[in-house]
Amino acid sequence: MDPDLSALDDFLDDGGFDGYLVHADGEDSTQRYLSGFDAPDPYVTLYDGERHLLVSSLEYGRARREAPTEDVVRHADFDYGAKREEYGHVEAGHRVIAEFLAERGVDAVAVPGRFPLAVADGLRDLDVSVTAETEGVVTDIRATKTEAELDFVRATQRANERALARAEELVREASVEDGVLVHDGEALTSERVRREMEIALLREGYALEESIVACGAAAADPHDRGNGPLYADEPVIVDVFPRDKESKYFADMTRTFVKGTPSDEVRAWYDLTEEALEAALAAVEPGATGADVHDAVCDVYEAAGEPTLRDDPTTETGFIHSTGHGVGLDIHERPSLGPGGGDLEPGMVITVEPGLYDPDVGGVRIEDIVVVTEDGYENLTDYPRELVVE
Amino acid sequence: MDPDLSALDDFLDDGGFDGYLVHADGEDSTQRYLSGFDAPDPYVTLYDGERHLLVSSLEYGRARREAPTEDVVRHADFDYGAKREEYGHVEAGHRVIAEFLAERGVDAVAVPGRFPLAVADGLRDLDVSVTAETEGVVTDIRATKTEAELDFVRATQRANERALARAEELVREASVEDGVLVHDGEALTSERVRREMEIALLREGYALEESIVACGAAAADPHDRGNGPLYADEPVIVDVFPRDKESKYFADMTRTFVKGTPSDEVRAWYDLTEEALEAALAAVEPGATGADVHDAVCDVYEAAGEPTLRDDPTTETGFIHSTGHGVGLDIHERPSLGPGGGDLEPGMVITVEPGLYDPDVGGVRIEDIVVVTEDGYENLTDYPRELVVE
Repeated sequence: MDPDLSALDDFLDDGGFDGYLVHADGEDSTQRYLSGFDAPDPYVTLYDGERHLLVSSLEYGRARREAPTEDVVRHADFDYGAKREEYGHVEAGHRVIAEFLAERGVDAVAVPGRFPLAVADGLRDLDVSVTAETEGVVTDIRATKTEAELDFVRATQRANERALARAEELVREASVEDGVLVHDGEALTSERVRREMEIALLREGYALEESIVACGAAAADPHDRGNGPLYADEPVIVDVFPRDKESKYFADMTRTFVKGTPSDEVRAWYDLTEEALEAALAAVEPGATGADVHDAVCDVYEAAGEPTLRDDPTTETGFIHSTGHGVGLDIHERPSLGPGGGDLEPGMVITVEPGLYDPDVGGVRIEDIVVVTEDGYENLTDYPRELVVE
Repeated sequence: MDPDLSALDDFLDDGGFDGYLVHADGEDSTQRYLSGFDAPDPYVTLYDGERHLLVSSLEYGRARREAPTEDVVRHADFDYGAKREEYGHVEAGHRVIAEFLAERGVDAVAVPGRFPLAVADGLRDLDVSVTAETEGVVTDIRATKTEAELDFVRATQRANERALARAEELVREASVEDGVLVHDGEALTSERVRREMEIALLREGYALEESIVACGAAAADPHDRGNGPLYADEPVIVDVFPRDKESKYFADMTRTFVKGTPSDEVRAWYDLTEEALEAALAAVEPGATGADVHDAVCDVYEAAGEPTLRDDPTTETGFIHSTGHGVGLDIHERPSLGPGGGDLEPGMVITVEPGLYDPDVGGVRIEDIVVVTEDGYENLTDYPRELVVE
C-alpha cells in the first residue's frame, strides 16, 4: 500500500511545518494509515516526506519487520533510562521525542486535532513548535483509496454479503406465530439475528461491533439498533458494517426485508427508495459533489411527495438523514454525501443509502457501497434487492 | 455505581483547579468512568464536585435518561448554529465548551494527559486555563472498585471460566496424530481454540478482542498470541481476557495445559509456578505493595535456581515479566505488581500471574484474578489448576 501523500507535502510546505507528528495507538486510523503499523499502545510517527517511527522496546522488533520504513527507532536509542532518572518518566518521554525530531531536523510540527495535550505542552517546553490542524489533512487523503485498500474493502464486503445472507436465511426459515417470527421454537429477535451474523463473520475473521436489525417503530429511528421480536408483514431493516480484523477495513450495506406481505405503503416506499438509490448512483462520478448525489435522492422523494430534511429541516418523518459517507479504516469517514458534501474523486469508497421513516409505518432503507471511478462508479455490492422474503 | 471521587476533589483543591474536564468518546475509560455514560463520538464531561455533561443533539435524549447527573446539556443550548455561522464549526465548538464552563463558574481546568490539543488550544484562546495532568488522578481512583464494579468483574470472570473450559474440552477431546492434536479431523490450532472461545463468549455477550493460546517456542514469548497446530506432551498457555460488552469490565486468567505427558522439567516448572502463585497470594493484603507481591514470586523462583529479571535484568529466560496488574474498564490498569508497584488497598482487582519461559522448553504460566480485601484477598477465580489434560 503506497498512498499518495502529496497533499500532506503541500500542507506542510504551505504552513511552514517541518513534519506531521502523530502520537497514538494503532486504533487511531490516522496513525495506522500514516505509520503502516499497528500496536496496542501509543507510539510516534513523524512524516516529513518520509516516515519515521519511534516505538517502545516491546514493539521494536516487530516494527522493524512490518513498518514500511527503514527509520524505526526506540526509546532506548535516546538514553531513555538516564533521562528517566533525571527528569521522571513523563518529561523523559517528551525529551526522547524532542531529540528524535531534532535528529531529523524537525523544529515545527503540525499534529492532528486530537494529539495529546501533555505531549504537545511537553514538546513546546522543549522549544518544539506544535500546531494542531483541524482541517483533517490526512483524513482527506484517506478518502481516496489505493488498489490495495480497495481489495481490503471488497474482501470485507464479500464477507458482509455472506452475513446478510445468513440474516435473510433466518427470516426465510422462520415461521409466523401470532404475527411474530419464530425460529427453532423461539421468537426470532433483533438480538438473535445480530448475534448470528456476528458469529458468521467472526468465523471468517471479521468483527461486527455493531449492526442494526430493526423492525416496526425501531426501524423508523435510523439510530436505533433494534431489539425484541421481529414481526411478520412489517419491514425489517438490516444494516451490517463488519471490519476485517487483519486489514481493519470496513464494508457497509443495508437491505430491508418483509416476511409475509408488505402493506401497499411499504411496497411503494421500497420501490421509491430503489428509484432514489438508482438516481443517486447515476449521479456518482468525478466532478459531481456529495451534495449533488444527496440532491438526486431528495429530488426523487420530493417529486413523490415524501418529506425530506432538504425541503423541511424540521421533519421527523420521510428522508431524515444524509445519503451516505466514506468507508475505509473508519466506518464513517470522508467524503460526506449530504448538504455541503464536496467533490467526488476516483478511488473514493462511499455508501449510498436512501431511506424513508415514519413511526406509524416503520422504515425502509437500501444501501450499496460503491467506489468512484474515472467515468462513474463501480458497485462493490453483490446482493439482490428483494423486499419480500418467502 | 457511586465511586469515591474525594481524591479528585483533593487534587482539584490542591492544584487550584475549578474542575476536571474530559473530551473523549465512551471508549476512553476515564470518560466512561467519570461520565457514567457511553457514546461513540466524543462528548464533554466536567467534574467539579458534581458531574456535568455536554453532548450532541443525537445523544441528548439518551444522556438525559442514562447519565447519573441532572446537568446534561447540548450544543444547541449555546446557540451553536449562530456560532457556527460566525466562527466556523471548529471554533464554534470551542466557544460552546467555554460558555458551558463559564456558566458553571469554571475558569481553570485540569485535563487528562491525552486531552485533545486542538480543544485545549481553542479554550486557552478563550481565556480558559487548561492544564494536562500526567499523574493519572482518575486512573488511580479507578484502581479501587465499588461493589457494583466487583460484580461486573465477577460476572465477566464466570464467563471467562466457561470459555476456558471450552478450550480445555477441545484439548481433551483431541486425538494425537504424529504428535499434533487433531479435533474433528483437522489439526487443533491456536487460532481454532481462540475462535471457539471467542464464539462461546460472544454468545453470552462478551467480547474477546485478543487471547493467547501458545504452544512450544511461541509460549516462551509472553507477548506471542500463538499460531498453528498444538502439540502433544508440550505445554499450551491459554490466557483469556474477555470484556462484558454491556458493562465494559474485563476479567483475566491463565492456565497451562499439557495433552499427554509433560517433561520432568515442565512438571517441575508447573509445580514451582503454583508455589510462586501461592506465595504471591499470601503476600496480598492492604499495606503490602505491588512490589512486595512481585518479590514473593521472585523469591520462590530464585530459591529454586530459576533466573528472574530481578536477579538478572538481561535474562531472556525464566521469569521475564512482572507479577500482575489491575483489571477493570481497561485490561491493564493500576496498580502494578512489579518493581516499584505501590500500595495495595481494599477493593483493588489484580491479577497474579507468575510464569517461566525458555524457547527450548516452552512456557508455563498460571494466573488468578483476585480482589484485595480488608484482611487479605478474595480469589475471584474458580477454575482448577491441573497441568495434564486427559
